[in-house]
Amino acid sequence: MTTLSHLLDLAALPAAEIPDSARTMAQFSLFDWMVCGRAGVEEPLSGILRAYVLAEGGRHVASVLGGGQAPARAAALVNGATSHALDYDDTHFGHVGHPSVGIYPAALAVGEEMGCRAVEVAEAFLLGAEASVRVGMVLGAVHYNRGFHQTATAGAFGATVAAGRLYGLTRDQMRVALGLCATRASGLKSQFGTMGKPYNAGIAAANGVECAALARAGFTSADDGVMGPQGFVLTHSDHPVEAGVWDAPPPHSFVFEDIKYKLHACCHGTHAMIEGLATALRQHNLTPERVAKLHLRTSPRWLSVCDIKRPRTGLEVKFSYAWLAGMVLAGIPTAAERTYTDALAADPTLAKFAEKITVSGSPNVGDMQAEGEILLTDGTLVPFGHDLAARIDSAVLEASLRAKAFGLLGGAAERLWDMVANLPTLSAADLGLGLRS
Amino acid sequence: MTTLSHLLDLAALPAAEIPDSARTMAQFSLFDWMVCGRAGVEEPLSGILRAYVLAEGGRHVASVLGGGQAPARAAALVNGATSHALDYDDTHFGHVGHPSVGIYPAALAVGEEMGCRAVEVAEAFLLGAEASVRVGMVLGAVHYNRGFHQTATAGAFGATVAAGRLYGLTRDQMRVALGLCATRASGLKSQFGTMGKPYNAGIAAANGVECAALARAGFTSADDGVMGPQGFVLTHSDHPVEAGVWDAPPPHSFVFEDIKYKLHACCHGTHAMIEGLATALRQHNLTPERVAKLHLRTSPRWLSVCDIKRPRTGLEVKFSYAWLAGMVLAGIPTAAERTYTDALAADPTLAKFAEKITVSGSPNVGDMQAEGEILLTDGTLVPFGHDLAARIDSAVLEASLRAKAFGLLGGAAERLWDMVANLPTLSAADLGLGLRS
Repeated sequence: MTTLSHLLDLAALPAAEIPDSARTMAQFSLFDWMVCGRAGVEEPLSGILRAYVLAEGGRHVASVLGGGQAPARAAALVNGATSHALDYDDTHFGHVGHPSVGIYPAALAVGEEMGCRAVEVAEAFLLGAEASVRVGMVLGAVHYNRGFHQTATAGAFGATVAAGRLYGLTRDQMRVALGLCATRASGLKSQFGTMGKPYNAGIAAANGVECAALARAGFTSADDGVMGPQGFVLTHSDHPVEAGVWDAPPPHSFVFEDIKYKLHACCHGTHAMIEGLATALRQHNLTPERVAKLHLRTSPRWLSVCDIKRPRTGLEVKFSYAWLAGMVLAGIPTAAERTYTDALAADPTLAKFAEKITVSGSPNVGDMQAEGEILLTDGTLVPFGHDLAARIDSAVLEASLRAKAFGLLGGAAERLWDMVANLPTLSAADLGLGLRS
Repeated sequence: MTTLSHLLDLAALPAAEIPDSARTMAQFSLFDWMVCGRAGVEEPLSGILRAYVLAEGGRHVASVLGGGQAPARAAALVNGATSHALDYDDTHFGHVGHPSVGIYPAALAVGEEMGCRAVEVAEAFLLGAEASVRVGMVLGAVHYNRGFHQTATAGAFGATVAAGRLYGLTRDQMRVALGLCATRASGLKSQFGTMGKPYNAGIAAANGVECAALARAGFTSADDGVMGPQGFVLTHSDHPVEAGVWDAPPPHSFVFEDIKYKLHACCHGTHAMIEGLATALRQHNLTPERVAKLHLRTSPRWLSVCDIKRPRTGLEVKFSYAWLAGMVLAGIPTAAERTYTDALAADPTLAKFAEKITVSGSPNVGDMQAEGEILLTDGTLVPFGHDLAARIDSAVLEASLRAKAFGLLGGAAERLWDMVANLPTLSAADLGLGLRS
């Protein structure tokens, strides 16, 4: 079996064979994607793209984040970029890419166009995301290191699978769609720090819709545009690694389930500590007053990044273990951008608590890990620790994602959660309404 | 000066500094592009793309080959692919790409949207085409050999320059547009032989329009997406060759002027012979009856390709030196696809003439060359020869392009010629009308 035939099998996987665990993660991603998208509509790049496609006009087929409707590939372009605008969306470390922002916009736009059910959109996303991560693994780290942005490149193949499934492509049409995607996919990391980065997510989504639509309409393309001679992989990776990538194919294994969510609007290097402390807080009913001392061991690489002892601004709080630890123990949400004010940096209670905290770098602690001990005033020693690579319990993840969403959107977040929680009762059009209202 | 700053200078070149020789070639390309476009509207891929964007709908801003109007980037997509459908459009061997089909669709669509004059469209095309060939030269043969289709990749940068000039971008906006193009450009040669090949030309054109439009609306992008770290060139070429490419920049030198046109609807390996014989025909008033013997020396590589001694079908005539030589001397047009019928292969006069012809391979004759002698019945020996690399006299080129156009479109061709011959009196909208009527 080649990568192409695995992708074709994946795209045609019967819904009944999708395991519940994968469905659950696809629904968490749907929620988180809608939240990030809604939260991104005020960003300048979102407004520019939205105005551009709404000025082009066209059939009102698919919903546009921020309001309005447009043809499917135009909506996918806007929604991909808008949902990646805050860089707060999900990440898969199997290939280092952001699956939701490139693939959900394609799935939802085509789902709305085709009158699909919401559950079908989530299924198409899941299979597309699985395809993108696997293609990204074949492309390998060398692809990313050369300068390609997997969110856009591998993402386009995922968007093609998702869009193609909802367009009802035959196996041969799906092969054509993937072949067209091979000549259409693009995206460079050198855009990071500019609007070009979120644009890349929109590119992936729009490419997926266009390639699937043309295949549906009778286009032809290279026989195997993915792995064939001078296909996408061989032109875009010096050392592709097909071996092993498909040893445990779906439905037996979904690598997508290792998807990670950004749950805190602060430096990534602080997230493991925050999770570890939050767990300890729940297990031991901690309060700041009960803490006598707190010691954190982190990866040495983070010491120069996020160990600001006495932050002066809200931005510096995002890079301060001492302040963030106090926030967690005091129950101050770390998920909302607006929490990080200059007033927070001047908070006397947090400043006093920060004096109890010490931090050291340990070569035994990885980039995604944190560990340490809390000495309570009664003499108890409470160890804490977390590895971001570990899967989070569903109930905890739900609570964290909803807290993040509330921080970003307030009450509107709960209405989005209700939609995702009741997905089987909804249509794609209902989800679309959630995007633009 | 970097490639980026040269491109920015090029995009902003005052119209008064454009030499007449370059203008002339841009106008020949405009005519040939419109002819190839009009001739391609019945191809299946053209119909599919046209139906797709017309179904999307949107503002009637730019003309679509075959009828209808659409938003600029949608029209550019259709027109790029449609004009490349017959693979009969111009070629530049500086980077091996087809400039017109990727760049004129962008220039004309934006020219129509912006209410430009037709001459401004041709100028924007010229500067865009010059940009694309130079970028293609920087990317180098290694880029093409790895599997990238310069028509699409370098072409997108040309389309961006052309579209950006007509959108009136500032220098900094043009830099942004080129930066966005760096993350948007794509296209693989592995699509050759499928609809994916002409699609690549449409991709280039649509990308150029989109990137220029977003830059105009306020987008940001990588500082130097072309030559910067992990920019387009360094991610897409293992051995870029910037040195020398800009030694003689415009307006002093336009490499675009070396553009070549396909003037005969037969195997490329026969074109040098056809041109050489056509010249001899004009100079010596030859007729088939006056020819006693004809000997052709060609590149050895062509002997196995286009030396079919006794063609059985119209298709085989396209690969027959003997038949094509007789056609030239008998005044039978070689430019029209419909000339090559099975009846032509069975023509007794051509069959009889073919007996007078001998062909040999010579290592001294290059791929783009042909030479030989004609022995007349009166004993005169008439040498002939041609090198496709040589520039053709304007009057001869005009006659050849008009003959090709007439063969493809009949009387409609002359109306297109009249438009191009009277370009200063026309608007972009007039050209658009010529596309869709």
